Amino acid sequence: MEIVITDSIEIKAPFFDVDSCEVVWHGHYVKYFEEARCHLLDRVGYNYQAMRQDGYFFPVVDMKIKFVAPLVFAQVFIVNTTLVEWENRLKVKYEIVDKDSGSKITKGYTIQVAVDVETRQMQFESPTRLIQMVEAMR
Amino acid sequence: MEIVITDSIEIKAPFFDVDSCEVVWHGHYVKYFEEARCHLLDRVGYNYQAMRQDGYFFPVVDMKIKFVAPLVFAQVFIVNTTLVEWENRLKVKYEIVDKDSGSKITKGYTIQVAVDVETRQMQFESPTRLIQMVEAMR
Amino acid sequence: MEIVITDSIEIKAPFFDVDSCEVVWHGHYVKYFEEARCHLLDRVGYNYQAMRQDGYFFPVVDMKIKFVAPLVFAQVFIVNTTLVEWENRLKVKYEIVDKDSGSKITKGYTIQVAVDVETRQMQFESPTRLIQMVEAMR
Amino acid sequence: MEIVITDSIEIKAPFFDVDSCEVVWHGHYVKYFEEARCHLLDRVGYNYQAMRQDGYFFPVVDMKIKFVAPLVFAQVFIVNTTLVEWENRLKVKYEIVDKDSGSKITKGYTIQVAVDVETRQMQFESPTRLIQMVEAMR
Repeated sequence: MEIVITDSIEIKAPFFDVDSCEVVWHGHYVKYFEEARCHLLDRVGYNYQAMRQDGYFFPVVDMKIKFVAPLVFAQVFIVNTTLVEWENRLKVKYEIVDKDSGSKITKGYTIQVAVDVETRQMQFESPTRLIQMVEAMR
Repeated sequence: MEIVITDSIEIKAPFFDVDSCEVVWHGHYVKYFEEARCHLLDRVGYNYQAMRQDGYFFPVVDMKIKFVAPLVFAQVFIVNTTLVEWENRLKVKYEIVDKDSGSKITKGYTIQVAVDVETRQMQFESPTRLIQMVEAMR
Repeated sequence: MEIVITDSIEIKAPFFDVDSCEVVWHGHYVKYFEEARCHLLDRVGYNYQAMRQDGYFFPVVDMKIKFVAPLVFAQVFIVNTTLVEWENRLKVKYEIVDKDSGSKITKGYTIQVAVDVETRQMQFESPTRLIQMVEAMR
Repeated sequence: MEIVITDSIEIKAPFFDVDSCEVVWHGHYVKYFEEARCHLLDRVGYNYQAMRQDGYFFPVVDMKIKFVAPLVFAQVFIVNTTLVEWENRLKVKYEIVDKDSGSKITKGYTIQVAVDVETRQMQFESPTRLIQMVEAMR
């Protein structure tokens, strides 16, 4: 059986994220993705704190964002996340939709790999505990 | 003859961009790309102010960043930019390298399209003045 | 009878706000204050959108923050706000406390004045509607 | 003889710092202050890296900013800094002025204290090396 782990969070676009074109500046979506990813990893039970305890950082090595429609001040939106890879690297897909209409705002993904805190070496397999936690959600 | 428009800026990684893993948080690179892109467009002679005077916003619709090596606090780096498309949309490629060693840190691209300030309609051709300014650099 | 208008919001310190000393970087508290202030003004019924409809910006002209204890990644905290002046200018006091222990993290205030969007002139009285909305909460 | 240590840096307001009122959002000035303070401390020869080598963090415990006039996109400004206290705590005063006209934009101060990295205890005297470096500038 396939494992499909999804999650979602709700955010209200804050004033300080809106630029002079009266839309959320594109760079701020990286924060929204991270908030949603952290929430997803909390759900999996293997968050950044757990990674650090195990001796790993999990830097983002690849990121893509496609901006379909703008977000405006105080707009309420949903960030949907799906964990699509976890065995060798962590790949999360994101979709941002307007809360009221469900219309699509943004989609994208991030790829992270484990890095040993001591040696700063990139790992080619994810930490055992991460894999176990994900498998346990089957 | 092919038109190749390139530019570069130098940045020193500020303290407030560094995260708890002691590297620049990945979302801040979007700022470095924008600073470099604005500098490139100043060179072309058609910057955000000129776009607005002509009645256009230029939102980013697509962005990709590949993180090869980390940046640390106070590291001095170069953001190299190349204007690769301008007729129908604005595509800029970025490469971040360490200033001293020249070693590669990051690469990526952004794609922007003109949007009419009045109608909020996306344009399928770049503003005439932008194309003229680029052609004039031939 | 004195009018005392208070409000509070809850925030969880995000990863991207934490610096290399493993505490929330001091500049990010300005965002927490603004999120809390916007929530308070929503409660009053005279938020930034209403101000703009009436033809006013409300820039911050004075801000003070005292940092008593640090915030760490994923710490949940409460931002308490009190509206202390509104007739000639908007003064809001803030207190940040740890959600679990109630221990004090930060206190501060901001002062804002109305500025006419057209003339860019600072106003020496708050917009009538703001005063009415506040008085109505008596 | 009194020791007066001053410094200044030049910044061009970036697009991503400008809010929907078309002025730099007030929270971003905290970054400008920090960039200027780091430059001043580099000049003194006792920067954040030196502090960390000596086993200290230097968190900001108090900050005040008075906003006199707005900054707009691409405006070039100067952040003047003066080191006014260093023996028991680090107090830096800031003044932001427009580069061309010299007209005042902002003034403020920050106060920092040494905190032992190991014990997380606040120190009531600055590190000896900081005091020596400052005295050496007499």
